[in-house]
Order: sequence, then structure tokens, then C-alpha cells
Amino acid sequence: MTDRKRALLDSTVRIIAHKGVRGLRVEEVAKDAGVSVALIYHHFGDRSTLLQSALLHVGQRAHEYTRPISAGDARAALLATVLGEIQDDAEIRDNSAAWGELRDAAIFDESLRPTLDALTGEWVDDLADIVRRGQADGSMAADLKRAEIGQRLTALVEGLSSRWLAGLISTAEAHALLEGAVARELLSG
Amino acid sequence: MTDRKRALLDSTVRIIAHKGVRGLRVEEVAKDAGVSVALIYHHFGDRSTLLQSALLHVGQRAHEYTRPISAGDARAALLATVLGEIQDDAEIRDNSAAWGELRDAAIFDESLRPTLDALTGEWVDDLADIVRRGQADGSMAADLKRAEIGQRLTALVEGLSSRWLAGLISTAEAHALLEGAVARELLSG
Repeated sequence: MTDRKRALLDSTVRIIAHKGVRGLRVEEVAKDAGVSVALIYHHFGDRSTLLQSALLHVGQRAHEYTRPISAGDARAALLATVLGEIQDDAEIRDNSAAWGELRDAAIFDESLRPTLDALTGEWVDDLADIVRRGQADGSMAADLKRAEIGQRLTALVEGLSSRWLAGLISTAEAHALLEGAVARELLSG
Repeated sequence: MTDRKRALLDSTVRIIAHKGVRGLRVEEVAKDAGVSVALIYHHFGDRSTLLQSALLHVGQRAHEYTRPISAGDARAALLATVLGEIQDDAEIRDNSAAWGELRDAAIFDESLRPTLDALTGEWVDDLADIVRRGQADGSMAADLKRAEIGQRLTALVEGLSSRWLAGLISTAEAHALLEGAVARELLSG
């Protein structure tokens, strides 16, 4: 992706995070990024394509800030990857808020669904793959259902993120709840 | 609540579910409910108060469709209460979508936060109380952390509801994931 295209998508994500999908005006993205509206249409075609590109960008950004800490043993990697989604960082907060807005927009905007479905599936698979790694090295029980663990932990991150973004729970509280969830998911049987 | 006031809030919830908080126009609520805009302002004051009333109404409706099935032994009650949030029913879908919209609106609309905080707290407490009942009759382990279980199960319901509403998972899949979560939360230790 070109730097300019990335800057346009960063602006789009920031505006969605603060004003929602329905509040997104292409004119405001252009103003925020310091370019013409025509250039945005040149890069992204229509508004619907811009939203899909923004959703992909949100997924890519989340991948970048969770992936670097997913090294080490499988259990620590699983926990670090999950905790990485909720951090006291303005870009991560905006990314999380934009994800929530775009995800909920997909309830009525069918054009967003294939992208949302693919990104959610990749996220679930990322966690399932860490469990597979733990099962391979014997540090996690062989009877753990990887896909279910991935679905539940990612859905829990989404539910807790909304509460965290609205200020109902702190970052520390969200992390403690996620640590408890990871511990329970890794129990055999 | 008078029947008229309830009808106005039902209209408000339906419109929020389908068009979002930002897409809510008081004129459309009036049209949908077959009353004048002036009457809505008479009952609810400003738009901000209407949104808070709608959020309370969503909470009340959810309480009505989950409470009747929370009888029986504690474990069954906990599961039934959680599963009751996700059902193939148009009103429940709308209620769930409106809850998500209002919850996410609270990220930037501080006037919604006290109501959201109170309702989320009551929901968490409802589940914690069922665990307390199970601990009292000896059917659940004494060392279970009730508040944490309530927080995690309700947050998981919220995360799964978004996927369910967007068609990423079926009602049956959401229920199976919740059943697994309840089973894990009730393990001792």
C-alpha cells in the first residue's frame, strides 16, 4: 500500500471511530488527510469500497499491534495476543472503536459482511493456531477445541472492548477478566 | 409506563435498531408511532432524554424475555438466562441491535453512560445472583468468583450477539459457544 493510501485510510478509521460509519463524510476524510475528494474516489471508488478498505485496514492494524507479542510459549502467546487488543494507546482505542462501528454497520450493510466474516475468521484462526502449537508441544491438552476457544476468546474481547471504550471497565479490569477466561479455556475436559 | 409511552419507546428502539443512534430522527419516531413530534418532546423532553429512555426500555425488554426462563436449578437457570439473549425472534433481534447501537453511542455520548453502567451492572448482578443461589444450595463450587463470571458471560453474550446479528454465526452456534462458556465458568478452581 502506498503511504498516501495508508494515510487516507488512517483518516477514515479515525473519523469512523469518532463519528461512526453513518457520520463518515468523504469530504471530511479529504479535509483530514489534506487531499481532494476526487483523489479519494480515485483510490477507493465509491463510499462502499472505502468502508470495506477501512475495515481491512483496521484488521491489518490490529494484526500489527498483536502479532509482535505472540512469540514465546503457547500459553503466554495466547494471553499476550488477547491482551494486546486492549491497550492504553490512542491508536488502539480508535482502531477498536472503528472495528466496533464497522462490525455493527455490517448488520445492515451486506457489502461489509464478506470482509467482516473473513477478518473475524482469520482472528479466530490466529488464536486456534496458537492452541494448536501448544497441543503440538504438549503444553496444552489434546482435547481442547481450538475453533471454539478462538470464537469465544475473540467474542469476549469484542464484548469487553465495548465496555472498556465506554469507560465501564478499566484496562486492568479487562485484562484480569481476559486472563481468567484464557485460564478457563485451557482447562482440559 | 402508559401504553402510549411504551409504544413511543418501541418505535424508538425499532428505528435505532435499523438506522442507528445517529440515524434516529424524532420526526420518524413520531411518524412510526402515529403521533406528533410535539407529543414526543412532551413525554421525553430533549433528544438526549429520549435516548436514555430508549436504553432503559431496551434493558427492561431484555429483562422480560430472559427472566421468565430463569427458574429451576441454578445451573439450568444460568444457562437459560444467557441463551435467552439470543433467540430467533424479530423483537429480540431488534432489542439486541438497539442495545449494541446505544452501548457504542455511549463511547462518545457521556449522557448515556450512567444508564448504560447501571443496566450493565444489573445484568452482571443478575447472573452473579444465580451463581450465589447455586453456591447456597451446594450445586456450585464455593470458590467461584460470581462478579467475574457475570462480567465475562454478559460480555461474551454481547460479543457473540454482534456476530449473530451480522449473520456470521447462527443462533445454534451462538448457543453452543455459550453452553461451553457456562460449563467452563462453573468449573472449580
